Formats: sequence, C-alpha cells, structure tokens
Amino acid sequence: MDKNILRSLSYGVYAISTLDGDRPVGCIANSTMQVTYDTVVVSMNHDNFTHECMEKTKKFAISILGEDIEMNTIAFLGFQSGREKDKFEHIETLTIDNMPVIKNSVGYLICEVIDKLDTETHTLFLGKILDGAVLDDTKTPMTYAYYHKVKKGNSPKNAPTYIG
Amino acid sequence: MDKNILRSLSYGVYAISTLDGDRPVGCIANSTMQVTYDTVVVSMNHDNFTHECMEKTKKFAISILGEDIEMNTIAFLGFQSGREKDKFEHIETLTIDNMPVIKNSVGYLICEVIDKLDTETHTLFLGKILDGAVLDDTKTPMTYAYYHKVKKGNSPKNAPTYIG
Repeated sequence: MDKNILRSLSYGVYAISTLDGDRPVGCIANSTMQVTYDTVVVSMNHDNFTHECMEKTKKFAISILGEDIEMNTIAFLGFQSGREKDKFEHIETLTIDNMPVIKNSVGYLICEVIDKLDTETHTLFLGKILDGAVLDDTKTPMTYAYYHKVKKGNSPKNAPTYIG
Repeated sequence: MDKNILRSLSYGVYAISTLDGDRPVGCIANSTMQVTYDTVVVSMNHDNFTHECMEKTKKFAISILGEDIEMNTIAFLGFQSGREKDKFEHIETLTIDNMPVIKNSVGYLICEVIDKLDTETHTLFLGKILDGAVLDDTKTPMTYAYYHKVKKGNSPKNAPTYIG
C-alpha cells in the first residue's frame, strides 16, 4: 500500500479542549467529523493528556480554526503537553458551558461524550452537541491542506495523519 | 445552538463502494477520516443500501474524488438508490482486491470492517486499510466546500451534513 494516498483525505483544523480540574487543557486535531444531525466524532491519541481529561470530564469543546489563526496558537496547543505546561497561558479564550473555547476561531461546538470506539492507539469519542455557535462569519475555516501548503505547518507525531 | 456552525467543519468528497453479490454498489460520502496509521472511519446512514451491503461483505473501497470529477458520477452515486438501479452502469471502474474503484479518482483505499460504532441514524465503520494507491497525482482532492461553492453541489438527505 502506498501511504501517500492518505495525504489526499481532506480535513479541517480544530482545537479540542476540556478541563483538568479547573485548568483548561487541549490540543490540535484534524480528525473531527459530523456523524448524525446532533453528534460529532473526534479521534484522539491515547497518549494525549487531553484524552485522559476527556475520559474524566466526558465533555469537550471543538474550536474551528480559521485561516487567520496565529501559528503560535497551534504551536502552544499542538506541540507541547498540558501535563507540564499551561498551554492556554497565552491564548485568549471564552468560557462557554464551562469549557474553554478559542476566542479567535470561526466558532465552536460544545459536546458531551456519549459513546466511544477504541483502537490500538486512538479513541473515537462520539460527542452529542450541547451547544454551538458561529463567532466570526467572515473567517474561512482552515483546511488541513491549507495548513500544510500555505501555513507550512507540520503534524505532531500523535496525529493519525503523521507520516514519519 | 446555531446549526450553521456545522457548515464550518471541513471534509473531502468520497465514493464508498462495495458489492451486492457480484454487483458493484456505492454512494457518495464526506464523513471519512483516518483514525490510526492503518485504519479509517466512514459514517454511513442506516437507510443506505451501501450500509446493508457493507454489513454483509465487511469490505469497502474509498475512492477519493478530485476537483475534476464529473458531476454525473456524483449524481449517479449520490442521488439514487442501488436497490433499484445499477449505479455503476455509466461509471468507469477498476476492480481492486475484488472491490469497485472509481477510475477517474485521485486514488483509493481498500478496507476491511474491523469494528463499528452505532448511532441512532448512522454507523461508524472502522476499516483496516488492506491496500491503497494514488491513481493520478496531478488531481487535487475535492473538498466538500469546493463541491458546494464551485461545483454548486447539494447534499442528499441521508448525509450527516444535510441541513433541511
């Protein structure tokens, strides 16, 4: 099998966030999609601290990142661990339904984990959408292709789409 | 909740195909993503004939559609049912690992169903990738946004992203 074909699947770029006690935690994900009219699924690596916290809170936010997102936001959230650092220290957030949401995003979904499917390395969390809104309808949602081609972004090694 | 925010999630456009006995069947889907290095997940409406056939064959192909895909291919696959019609009558296909693949696509993945997660209206099929290849690396994978904006395409009512 030619692994390159996997690069032709299309995605957006999202911040998935939740809480560790009272502290906001989160990471960057591309593997997010709608399943039914009121559910979405997110794939999360077992090793991510966000995974551990989602298992506890059973609740998460999806912030939909636009093409204008600061690369620093992605660097803070995507390339360090919330176990050691306060990732949100330098990121402006809103608190919606008790969940941290990236202020400079296209919009958000707040979800409750209602089911999951486990794999060797990642968990698919099925989230029932509790709330959601457009924050800025002038922003264009960033695709994963745009992130790579235009923003020259990389994939962290826990991403399903990481090719070593 | 403002349903419009769901339009800001990004997807590709895919043909999901399998067999009904010896007969190729399939449909158009956008809800497809990689989960681990060798698995992908596809969301399929319970009412789709393709769903019924995937349950039996436990095998499916994902053809990644490019921006140059003929709208007829999408119309044949996406807006009629394989229960009544031979959807593939006018579509050129390749047979790979016994599965029908759209010839005029970016490339394909052949998958075996190894797990699933059921919801009220859709099943998430977790597929282990058995085979995959790029068919034409000059093609640009079509995003769902491109399909709507440039190709002026619609969503069939069984799509998770259908907004009535």
